[in-house]
Amino acid sequence: MVPMHQWIKIKAPATVANMVCGFDILGFAVNNPFDEMEMRLVPKQAGTAPITIINVDDYQLPTDPEKNVAGAALLALIEEFKGNEKLAVTDLAFEVKINKLIKPGSGVGSSAASSAGAVVGANYLLGNIFSKDDLVRFAMNGEKLASGVKHADNIAPCIFGGVTLVRSIFPLEIVALPSPQLYVTIVHPQIEVRTADARSILRQKVLLKDAIKQWGNIAGLVAGLMKSDYDLIGRSLEDVIIEPVRSILIPGFDTLKLACKNAGALGGGISGSGPSIFMLSKTQSIAEAVEKEMHQLYESIQLPHHTYVTTINQNGVEIVA
Amino acid sequence: MVPMHQWIKIKAPATVANMVCGFDILGFAVNNPFDEMEMRLVPKQAGTAPITIINVDDYQLPTDPEKNVAGAALLALIEEFKGNEKLAVTDLAFEVKINKLIKPGSGVGSSAASSAGAVVGANYLLGNIFSKDDLVRFAMNGEKLASGVKHADNIAPCIFGGVTLVRSIFPLEIVALPSPQLYVTIVHPQIEVRTADARSILRQKVLLKDAIKQWGNIAGLVAGLMKSDYDLIGRSLEDVIIEPVRSILIPGFDTLKLACKNAGALGGGISGSGPSIFMLSKTQSIAEAVEKEMHQLYESIQLPHHTYVTTINQNGVEIVA
Repeated sequence: MVPMHQWIKIKAPATVANMVCGFDILGFAVNNPFDEMEMRLVPKQAGTAPITIINVDDYQLPTDPEKNVAGAALLALIEEFKGNEKLAVTDLAFEVKINKLIKPGSGVGSSAASSAGAVVGANYLLGNIFSKDDLVRFAMNGEKLASGVKHADNIAPCIFGGVTLVRSIFPLEIVALPSPQLYVTIVHPQIEVRTADARSILRQKVLLKDAIKQWGNIAGLVAGLMKSDYDLIGRSLEDVIIEPVRSILIPGFDTLKLACKNAGALGGGISGSGPSIFMLSKTQSIAEAVEKEMHQLYESIQLPHHTYVTTINQNGVEIVA
Repeated sequence: MVPMHQWIKIKAPATVANMVCGFDILGFAVNNPFDEMEMRLVPKQAGTAPITIINVDDYQLPTDPEKNVAGAALLALIEEFKGNEKLAVTDLAFEVKINKLIKPGSGVGSSAASSAGAVVGANYLLGNIFSKDDLVRFAMNGEKLASGVKHADNIAPCIFGGVTLVRSIFPLEIVALPSPQLYVTIVHPQIEVRTADARSILRQKVLLKDAIKQWGNIAGLVAGLMKSDYDLIGRSLEDVIIEPVRSILIPGFDTLKLACKNAGALGGGISGSGPSIFMLSKTQSIAEAVEKEMHQLYESIQLPHHTYVTTINQNGVEIVA
């Protein structure tokens, strides 16, 4: 256990969920952007909450632990900790400072970074008593608070790093997938796409022939990542089910994707439920050419936006000090 | 090129298509059963057919090349050969002797073995001028003749060996997947399941949530095979879309599957469109215990059946002499 009152610093990466054909199952962490957090353990005062949240950014997110995603995740961790006879945390309280550098609502796992960062930090403070699978389970409570759904698409890569497969939610099973060096270009057009809207426009049924096409691509993508076969990865980055529906919510999506692929990107798609779009490339120079295309398109329609050129983060949430 | 009139011997393996969750995309070749074929090139007589088929088994399959799957596959190969100015086969004819040891209609790629064996043999006689992808393309014409659909599920593993992924049919793309040592138990209950019937009972639409579950399993199966992770393979061998519908065509399917898994099998399902059922196991002794369960069940309901305990064939069609 880390000594009482000693602050630790945490870096929690942004993540891309719904990796093209891998809707709801494949995601990855990136090295930029990331959230910064600080945490420490203090003696709990009688009658006070076991969690104190201090926001050091300008997003005015709730500080009530039950209404804050980091708080919800920590509450789940504390609940399990209490249930364990060998452990006794009832006399301890967590203080959490959150500096969100990942803009909420951008579609690159902002809520997951807070939830995952908090439980990884707490686990470190307590002497790493929980497994990564446990931590994912706790952090999913933050996602439930944020979106109403206890999903692990962003939490899994945020905690494990790299590319992750959520093979099953009940029971939870996460499989870390090896991947070759990949450069990631992300554009965040400054529009709002509500996760609930992005969910509600999906059709409940899909054609079997489309599903078969999709699972051919998923199998191809997993094989391509594990074989470091960039061409196979590129050919498999095709989504015939979700993207045709959801992309209508994102201005210029088809044009932008085509321009990025013409600039050399292997492929890409909507990050999470949008509005951010990500593209994967084999080299940094291609990733930068892709960024230029993104700028050009969104400048031409005068849509404010941010871009990032980064790489896949292999470590997930890290304790940096 | 092999000298005129010299016979070559060919061994064409049985194959399992629709590998549980990998409907229409994943299949593998097995070492037993297999078809035996012999082929040679002879000078073509003016006005005679370029293919002579001699059946040396008791199945009374057609000998007219246009009505025989091996003939249909060879005709496609000859057509492409003719189209190539550098080659000249118009004065050559193939003689093919086929000894089918894989019972037609058993669901383990009997027609694929004939088609694939014929084109691999022809290619060898001609000096290996075609790629494996070309050969799959030719052999698919045999499948079209047999089932009305130009599918590659059995042809791909029959020609490539091992476990294969058909990532895409148009354009055709086959990905060979590494796999660990796996023992295969197959039972062929002596009933008829027509491929057309097995296709017609499938629903055209599936629930998105089922499709997502299926693609989690497909990704898990590919990752499990490539990581040699038997437990992951076992957990991923689940089909929530096709098997619940098709298994009603196969007597005792659910009971048999449960008994096999209780005997230690990793999992399994319907081979192709049935009626054969296959199970995968980690060791030969488990595969034999699984075979015993299959015998017991089908003896208890007095259903005649054949069983095989074998391994995954890594080489595909082979020229053996």
